[in-house]
Amino acid sequence: MKVLNLQDKFAKFSDLWSPKVIAEMNNYQFKLVKINNEFTFHKHLETDEVFIVIEGEMFIEFTDSTVNLQAGEMIVVPKGTEHKPYAPNECKIMLVEPKGTVNTGDSVDIDRTTPNDDWI
Amino acid sequence: MKVLNLQDKFAKFSDLWSPKVIAEMNNYQFKLVKINNEFTFHKHLETDEVFIVIEGEMFIEFTDSTVNLQAGEMIVVPKGTEHKPYAPNECKIMLVEPKGTVNTGDSVDIDRTTPNDDWI
Repeated sequence: MKVLNLQDKFAKFSDLWSPKVIAEMNNYQFKLVKINNEFTFHKHLETDEVFIVIEGEMFIEFTDSTVNLQAGEMIVVPKGTEHKPYAPNECKIMLVEPKGTVNTGDSVDIDRTTPNDDWI
Repeated sequence: MKVLNLQDKFAKFSDLWSPKVIAEMNNYQFKLVKINNEFTFHKHLETDEVFIVIEGEMFIEFTDSTVNLQAGEMIVVPKGTEHKPYAPNECKIMLVEPKGTVNTGDSVDIDRTTPNDDWI
């Protein structure tokens, strides 16, 4: 049982859009990600996905609307919902999702799809 | 799909040790809790439990050690592990655990056990 300091963990990596696992609860994982600029539209067919903004601000574009999230805010994106995250500047977020969830969901993108069990 | 501001949600209640559900992801819930002073020793036989400190500081006493968590820190308490949270001053935390998890785990305590699906 280890106390995890989120900022210490963020200091351990600098690559963007590449979720790093910091903790596992049952079969769910807590992942930190640094994002900047646009990601691709994708959906997760088998699971909801939680975004928690730790520092900075981000937007999530849906097919018919866009939401803005600031530090200290979170959202649950329901399974099957197309979404495209983007951030005007570097933004630090935490994701909560089942182990094995792929960052690009059903949209395999050779430039964007990253390993999904990369621990720091 | 709604953006949830954690501090806005914390402003909606003042009772202590009484988790309020703010979001559901699959069959898991995100709960906010205000804590102060000591809770009771208990364990959850069926699930791990995540504590994330949003504001203030807390301690978790285990049978053989105690950990300190500050704002921006988190811990996974493995299932079956006896633990007693406490806080020297009011502390705001977020819990992540399966829907239906009772705050006092296997230790029913008439003064402490609260409804486990109380949304704000």
